[in-house]
Amino acid sequence: MLRYSQGVTLDPPTTPRGAAAARQHSLRERNLELVARAVFESPEPLSRADVATSTGLARATVSTLVDRLVAGRLLTELPPVAAQRAGRPAVPLAPAARSVVGLGLEVNVDYLGASVMDLTGDTVDERVVPGAFHDSDPATVLPRLGALAQDLIADAEAEGMRVAGARLALPGLVDARTGLLQVAPNLGWSSVAPVPLLGLGDLPVDVANEAKLAALAELTGDVSPSFLYVSADVGIGAAVVVDRHLFLGERGWNGEIGHVVVDPSGPRCSCGAFGCLEQYAGKEALMKGAGLAVDAPLEALVHALQAHDDGAVGAVRQAGAALGSALADFVNLVDVGTIVLGGAYTTLLPWLRDDVRALLAERVLSAPFAPVEVQAAEAGPYAAMAGGAREVLRDVLASPADWV
Amino acid sequence: MLRYSQGVTLDPPTTPRGAAAARQHSLRERNLELVARAVFESPEPLSRADVATSTGLARATVSTLVDRLVAGRLLTELPPVAAQRAGRPAVPLAPAARSVVGLGLEVNVDYLGASVMDLTGDTVDERVVPGAFHDSDPATVLPRLGALAQDLIADAEAEGMRVAGARLALPGLVDARTGLLQVAPNLGWSSVAPVPLLGLGDLPVDVANEAKLAALAELTGDVSPSFLYVSADVGIGAAVVVDRHLFLGERGWNGEIGHVVVDPSGPRCSCGAFGCLEQYAGKEALMKGAGLAVDAPLEALVHALQAHDDGAVGAVRQAGAALGSALADFVNLVDVGTIVLGGAYTTLLPWLRDDVRALLAERVLSAPFAPVEVQAAEAGPYAAMAGGAREVLRDVLASPADWV
Repeated sequence: MLRYSQGVTLDPPTTPRGAAAARQHSLRERNLELVARAVFESPEPLSRADVATSTGLARATVSTLVDRLVAGRLLTELPPVAAQRAGRPAVPLAPAARSVVGLGLEVNVDYLGASVMDLTGDTVDERVVPGAFHDSDPATVLPRLGALAQDLIADAEAEGMRVAGARLALPGLVDARTGLLQVAPNLGWSSVAPVPLLGLGDLPVDVANEAKLAALAELTGDVSPSFLYVSADVGIGAAVVVDRHLFLGERGWNGEIGHVVVDPSGPRCSCGAFGCLEQYAGKEALMKGAGLAVDAPLEALVHALQAHDDGAVGAVRQAGAALGSALADFVNLVDVGTIVLGGAYTTLLPWLRDDVRALLAERVLSAPFAPVEVQAAEAGPYAAMAGGAREVLRDVLASPADWV
Repeated sequence: MLRYSQGVTLDPPTTPRGAAAARQHSLRERNLELVARAVFESPEPLSRADVATSTGLARATVSTLVDRLVAGRLLTELPPVAAQRAGRPAVPLAPAARSVVGLGLEVNVDYLGASVMDLTGDTVDERVVPGAFHDSDPATVLPRLGALAQDLIADAEAEGMRVAGARLALPGLVDARTGLLQVAPNLGWSSVAPVPLLGLGDLPVDVANEAKLAALAELTGDVSPSFLYVSADVGIGAAVVVDRHLFLGERGWNGEIGHVVVDPSGPRCSCGAFGCLEQYAGKEALMKGAGLAVDAPLEALVHALQAHDDGAVGAVRQAGAALGSALADFVNLVDVGTIVLGGAYTTLLPWLRDDVRALLAERVLSAPFAPVEVQAAEAGPYAAMAGGAREVLRDVLASPADWV
């Protein structure tokens, strides 16, 4: 189920706080949002009477607003259940399945993908195309992703769904205000305006960093309200969540843990500097260290680890120590007590965990009285797409009047 | 002048946001706060009529509330100025000097100090006692500071001032909720409850990390709304300010840049780990590198630098490169485009700047399109005391009814 956490947002932090509040909502629109939010935020289905209690609105008002949300297919009515006290049976309300949907898009170094999520939080469609997009041309890659997205949109619309918008996840620095990709070292892209290249016409498309969207996908689960999210593919991305809010720094370019110094005498990185974490614990560095082809699938590394191959074990242990060192810096600077490891690290965690933990215990100043938890991400391999689709639906729920 | 920036706070970030709002302010108390804030936030003195315009309150209400604030000596009336239009001359209002004051206290490795600030932002008294508090006993040091504070309190009260409270700055990890110092490696203190040891009776005393209070002191000046503050003494502390708000992470233990990895094969640090920034760019490391006594005054190093002493220049350049590397990690992880250097770094900046800038340009992923600014702190050598006193006065201005 899609939990609608107010305040978790990718809006740039420099947006004046008054701007959203000043949006000219009529009272009725605000009440509509209040009712929709009550149903979406509740872990259990609510009846109209429950919504009246939780919002403080009059029952007749709630009933009218619920009728609008049901007619507009944002909410659905479940089979009535017998009332606990005397009276008519209560009709539980729930988010509507397969009505309004959000589209999550992603370009990563080794795949393209698109994913469709409905208001219940279910992924109703997902397609991933493996590829090699190292030093690729955005003018070729983005139209390919756009075509894939158009197929999914056509299929969803053929089944009567309405696609509210899309979020594009990219492995690089995205300016949240302009949607411009500043740089994605592993794609070899810089200063790209990606939305026009997708060719999706009038569909609203926002762009965001892939690790930040993937971190938001974790919030659907049982994760701690504050955590550092770190995810590895060829590059390594990170996000900071404090009290269920993404922390974005001044401009949203934070979380570049892949370029934290592990050893100044280490190898040269794609960014131009020396000894970055990515050169020890990125996917290509791991593969190379294990004596495998850099573009081999992760399963090849896992098989080698399961076979106790010395090269593979050595490479992953070195990566674990490097990752632990960079994570210790991250915790010392940002102070969050839970680390969620995503992407390739989710799979490799059993072999990484001891070295990561040892370095955190050694280097984090607060560790003696507040040990750092390290856990695997739960949102699956395409978390950024799921997180992106979830953000689109969050926007729908913030302005339900536009959809009913 | 003390600018009263609402929202800049050391409250722990996990405090429920509703808690402050739920405080049972009567309407009159809230209006009193509104009026006080209007005067304190304005860069120019306001008349009663100006306050009515800026708050939207009725003129008669404003006049009554201003009278209370003037009688309670939070505000003062300046000499009348001729009205621009016909009518009575306007009486400009300003924060009252030498009435209600805040006390900033600090223990650092090489000094103890106390400072008294009034509502105009002026430091009305300040005493600093040099010392050597490496591996000291808090049960000896804190009562000494308490006695110093009591002298200042007695002097202030003899002049008719009212001391609203105190903030104690410590160079270590402070739990903002409990006021407990978890660890201060360079003092050799751990698990200390410092407030009772000060012996200041009923005076409200809060405890905070020294770099965070020093960063707040910068907000009194013309600094960018978002900056990283990094300050060196024996240890190196840091704070993150985004949009004039301190970012505290999950528990307020962030900003430990002194323990970021510069080189894993480097020297062992006071924290137990190897190659921490403090071992390259802390004050003792600098002194030792320059061939000076570790407890020599900073001026000795400056004289050696001015005399182009090779050892001193080499030590400071090595420190600059190490600091630049750690700052690059900080910017990559947190994304703030302005760095303010305080403490010993303010003095040493002319000799550090080139190496710091070179490392930032090399290692910060966003640097090619958004260069990082490096500048000297402006709040002076005892910024943490000033920032602490300022926080006390901020609390006064948030509840003026308690003081009139």
